[in-house]
Amino acid sequence: MTVSPMAGDGAVESRFGMTELDDLPDDLRERIGAIAAKSGFVPNIFRALGHRPAELRAFLDYHDALMDPPARPDPPARPDPPARPDPPARPDPPAGGDSGSSSSGLTKAERELVVVATSAANHCLYCIVAHGAILRIRSKDPQLADRVAANPWQVELTDRSRVIVDLALALTRTPELFGDADIAKARDAGLTDDEIWDVGAITALFAASNRLAHLTALQPNPEFYLMGRNPRS
Amino acid sequence: MTVSPMAGDGAVESRFGMTELDDLPDDLRERIGAIAAKSGFVPNIFRALGHRPAELRAFLDYHDALMDPPARPDPPARPDPPARPDPPARPDPPAGGDSGSSSSGLTKAERELVVVATSAANHCLYCIVAHGAILRIRSKDPQLADRVAANPWQVELTDRSRVIVDLALALTRTPELFGDADIAKARDAGLTDDEIWDVGAITALFAASNRLAHLTALQPNPEFYLMGRNPRS
Amino acid sequence: MTVSPMAGDGAVESRFGMTELDDLPDDLRERIGAIAAKSGFVPNIFRALGHRPAELRAFLDYHDALMDPPARPDPPARPDPPARPDPPARPDPPAGGDSGSSSSGLTKAERELVVVATSAANHCLYCIVAHGAILRIRSKDPQLADRVAANPWQVELTDRSRVIVDLALALTRTPELFGDADIAKARDAGLTDDEIWDVGAITALFAASNRLAHLTALQPNPEFYLMGRNPRS
Amino acid sequence: MTVSPMAGDGAVESRFGMTELDDLPDDLRERIGAIAAKSGFVPNIFRALGHRPAELRAFLDYHDALMDPPARPDPPARPDPPARPDPPARPDPPAGGDSGSSSSGLTKAERELVVVATSAANHCLYCIVAHGAILRIRSKDPQLADRVAANPWQVELTDRSRVIVDLALALTRTPELFGDADIAKARDAGLTDDEIWDVGAITALFAASNRLAHLTALQPNPEFYLMGRNPRS
Amino acid sequence: MTVSPMAGDGAVESRFGMTELDDLPDDLRERIGAIAAKSGFVPNIFRALGHRPAELRAFLDYHDALMDPPARPDPPARPDPPARPDPPARPDPPAGGDSGSSSSGLTKAERELVVVATSAANHCLYCIVAHGAILRIRSKDPQLADRVAANPWQVELTDRSRVIVDLALALTRTPELFGDADIAKARDAGLTDDEIWDVGAITALFAASNRLAHLTALQPNPEFYLMGRNPRS
Amino acid sequence: MTVSPMAGDGAVESRFGMTELDDLPDDLRERIGAIAAKSGFVPNIFRALGHRPAELRAFLDYHDALMDPPARPDPPARPDPPARPDPPARPDPPAGGDSGSSSSGLTKAERELVVVATSAANHCLYCIVAHGAILRIRSKDPQLADRVAANPWQVELTDRSRVIVDLALALTRTPELFGDADIAKARDAGLTDDEIWDVGAITALFAASNRLAHLTALQPNPEFYLMGRNPRS
Repeated sequence: MTVSPMAGDGAVESRFGMTELDDLPDDLRERIGAIAAKSGFVPNIFRALGHRPAELRAFLDYHDALMDPPARPDPPARPDPPARPDPPARPDPPAGGDSGSSSSGLTKAERELVVVATSAANHCLYCIVAHGAILRIRSKDPQLADRVAANPWQVELTDRSRVIVDLALALTRTPELFGDADIAKARDAGLTDDEIWDVGAITALFAASNRLAHLTALQPNPEFYLMGRNPRS
Repeated sequence: MTVSPMAGDGAVESRFGMTELDDLPDDLRERIGAIAAKSGFVPNIFRALGHRPAELRAFLDYHDALMDPPARPDPPARPDPPARPDPPARPDPPAGGDSGSSSSGLTKAERELVVVATSAANHCLYCIVAHGAILRIRSKDPQLADRVAANPWQVELTDRSRVIVDLALALTRTPELFGDADIAKARDAGLTDDEIWDVGAITALFAASNRLAHLTALQPNPEFYLMGRNPRS
Repeated sequence: MTVSPMAGDGAVESRFGMTELDDLPDDLRERIGAIAAKSGFVPNIFRALGHRPAELRAFLDYHDALMDPPARPDPPARPDPPARPDPPARPDPPAGGDSGSSSSGLTKAERELVVVATSAANHCLYCIVAHGAILRIRSKDPQLADRVAANPWQVELTDRSRVIVDLALALTRTPELFGDADIAKARDAGLTDDEIWDVGAITALFAASNRLAHLTALQPNPEFYLMGRNPRS
Repeated sequence: MTVSPMAGDGAVESRFGMTELDDLPDDLRERIGAIAAKSGFVPNIFRALGHRPAELRAFLDYHDALMDPPARPDPPARPDPPARPDPPARPDPPAGGDSGSSSSGLTKAERELVVVATSAANHCLYCIVAHGAILRIRSKDPQLADRVAANPWQVELTDRSRVIVDLALALTRTPELFGDADIAKARDAGLTDDEIWDVGAITALFAASNRLAHLTALQPNPEFYLMGRNPRS
Repeated sequence: MTVSPMAGDGAVESRFGMTELDDLPDDLRERIGAIAAKSGFVPNIFRALGHRPAELRAFLDYHDALMDPPARPDPPARPDPPARPDPPARPDPPAGGDSGSSSSGLTKAERELVVVATSAANHCLYCIVAHGAILRIRSKDPQLADRVAANPWQVELTDRSRVIVDLALALTRTPELFGDADIAKARDAGLTDDEIWDVGAITALFAASNRLAHLTALQPNPEFYLMGRNPRS
Repeated sequence: MTVSPMAGDGAVESRFGMTELDDLPDDLRERIGAIAAKSGFVPNIFRALGHRPAELRAFLDYHDALMDPPARPDPPARPDPPARPDPPARPDPPAGGDSGSSSSGLTKAERELVVVATSAANHCLYCIVAHGAILRIRSKDPQLADRVAANPWQVELTDRSRVIVDLALALTRTPELFGDADIAKARDAGLTDDEIWDVGAITALFAASNRLAHLTALQPNPEFYLMGRNPRS
């Protein structure tokens, strides 16, 4: 890898070492192996957490419950007109059921938008670059992630996206000030309580995730920097 | 419940409603039931997260991996002299094994100390009161939790506890400034890398947990306020 | 005293030494003696300031003028219905008179609420614990002080209490931003100018008091931690 | 008074009205009258606090105990060489005596330096302008007050003055971070504990005073702006 | 120069040395010479930047374009009634022309008001003192500059001046939060887009200028401290 | 342009309109035309400032003096060994000469590093994306800009680059705290005074530039997002 003379030694991917896929317990090796097969590489976060399998497993479970629910499809990119369909009537989750957050109204792109915004406010290199790549892909917008990462507070967004991002930011840096006024603004803008929960819970999960990345000085895989930058990709 | 005229309506325990134990999936009902049997009540956090079973399950798993490992026993209270034994030779976790963070040198009281300190910096009512109660019990010190909650930055602590709390605080409010200098201070003070990981990971988990409590305006169970306040209890 | 292995040496009550009651000038010995007779102990703040009698005397005078005026009685605890009586018609203090703030509409519990809120924002251990105890007694609410101390910005309060706390907080940490808008909000909510003055002046006095406690690393008397925690006490 | 078109209505000196000298209780009228006779005018702070005589009296007592002790004379202005004499052997204040802070080593100019620095950090117009005037007179330096007011953190000072100002600033805006390290720096630089107390107590008193001025939107008397600006004055 | 024993060595005017007028390139020597002839002294900023003539030249050009346009005259001081004339019909700048910001509606006093407010928020000694002097002269108000410098956020101003200062402050310390809401407030208060640009551009230029002064620890010329303090001057 | 449904209307490039190249005065049209010929497009900043030709001209002059001096060539990319040559003996700039900052030791890549770091701390979208592109090209490192933009405080850099970035950051957000200690750290690490000036002056210029971009809500040209991302480009 060609590294500029100004960068430090890029070989150190994590402050506490990395665990190879083959050294993980079976369930984790299979689960992460499936991700790697799809992405073409093992995202560094999994190798950085790998020496604590129980923690990695819980982290993955939490992540999947919030980021990968069988949600409604992302709307097509403009100029195919972006008319957001009315939120589908969402049946209350059956008590005792286990459908997770699966039927929530937040699109997967919106979930990644929350991640990039909150990670930007926390200046988390790994999460900005890795989830910025996913946001590019999910939103089919090659600039959005860079724009959100530069300034989540003022980046120009649609009204709905702005409300989502404002809600996430309110909980990110000064959670002690979060209160009824923030909830009211989100509801007034049309977010359902289920969507508000999603935004809040994703912000909470990445409050943890950002700090794990800061703790380990985690470096993004090189592949993330370029993913989704070309309209074709 | 007698409530002062100054307090708001104490009947609202969570902004998004509470799930009763009987409405949880079987595994969660059993797991939380066991906690309730031991405590004498169901801690409100579980009922507040209960309508999202997959998230609650992941949260519990993460919590248990970090807070309830089969760790070394807490040292006895002073004046039985507190001479901290040398950290036991800790074998590297067997690759592919699943021992979690079980053999780490952090005592359970120290883990709760991290929780109270980081929750105090985040002004999280539920976590301060609930984990303050547990800290009182684990530390056998009826004042420590109130003192840490009032001012985690300057509360008088032993050198080892101060290093642990400083490390947690460095990651809590300005994680973007966390770096090699923080790690070096902890190592210089004798913390092992496994202990540093524990402090960082617990801080990360409660960065999430604090925000879930802020999201839901979660109220502590009344029982927590009094637990462990009397030397006998 | 049994102290946990994690706490530092609890024997140091103040950074600059303590003055015993017998070593104070006569007027102060009598005055503080009367407090001690009532409380059962000499609050540490008096002993910490005792080596500067002129300062201690001025501090006590200022404190009494604001905290112990012959004010209207605190309303009874709920469920005795909390209907706040209309503020009594308060005659203007006679010019040249010396009635201090005695006829102001703030109850003694509300005055302690201001102290706990502003001391919480300043993370002052002594004032949170000592005045938290008094707030528990005055409000007859064993949880209120802990709740305010954890997060004064968002703790659920009645509308009137919230306005009082918001006014105090506006002056606490960023006094340079305090202005007409803060005054207008308080007036709009029904606070009289005399009540606004009380809130502001108490906040000001405890801006000083908090800093004296930080200067001296003042420890609360152990008795304060438990006072007023049981409904019966 | 000629007022620029950009300034608001300068006739409002205080948000809650002003009390005339003749309307004060006898002792306060005499005491403040003596100050007015010396200054040529009644400083606005006294008229703004006058409607609460008990508070005004306590404020004056506290102020005098800290700002007007019979201290050692200020050293002459340079170039008469500024060699700071060794601190005089200071006998411990006799227990039960009432000498206040009278024999402390801080000069009156240094006390005003603390006031201007802490008031600058709190952006308190009244205290910066009024005590800036006194600092010009006490220090015989017509520029010092403006320089400290502009940037107390970096204004160039002698080593002793810098230590004094740093100590005051450490306690001003983030008192929760004040600790042993701040005390140690001051001691290492040669400040006695009595001097450290003076700096801390003056900072505390003006934490209150600044907030009273913010509460009342107190305007400085016009005379203060010009006092001590000419080397001759 | 008589300097108080508390001030540091006043002989150091700039951290990186000063360039004498005679050592500047011809165009700069003439240009700054003209300023010096008018003021009676060479403002220190020019000598501090003089060793980098290209930078000094660009700085002067930028400054003149924003601060010295042939603008409408400042209105006379009150009580000559301050009725602000309607902004003159301002023709659009001819495309390709070079009239700079010359016909903008901001008076020169208002431009200096922006400088003092933003420099106060940045605690820049040189700019507060030097431009405070110019503001006193331009506004014919000997107190305004000291009042703005002490607390730009809350100093009492006319509505128009307050809007101007608020706009400048919004861009000064947290530019990432500057947005449409700030622009809307200024427009609602009657500022034209040309005036908004002036406020923003002056704030931007002095964001640079303040930092150059901080970089060089630049001291104001002694003359600035006294200029414009007497109604007659 | 395909824009995601989440982004706002990307057609608005600047809050106050854009000036076309043909509408600029001759000298500016030629100068910016040359830049456009080289880049393949007109960077938006020039069109956004174009309606104020005098300001644009001064801005360009300042920029060129600091960013485009005839400096020493950037060192080749690693693994061609990065041994930084000793700083060339730099003759003092001849008094009265006009060589600008031309012989300074900062490479062009280092200058862009300062811009990206300070713009990241100010969350300036335009400057991060536009100068991030230039940094990629100058440093021949396709990841460096994204890494610096995400977290300038902790991004791993060589010692020299870290010192440069730390110096810039110290002056960016809290310039009032910038002082001798910052200068000493830079000198101790081997930076010459000329290099320190460059870092400080570039930081100052982009303090202005960032605020102009925030004032105008300036959008980066789409081309910038992709420039220099492929090792070959």
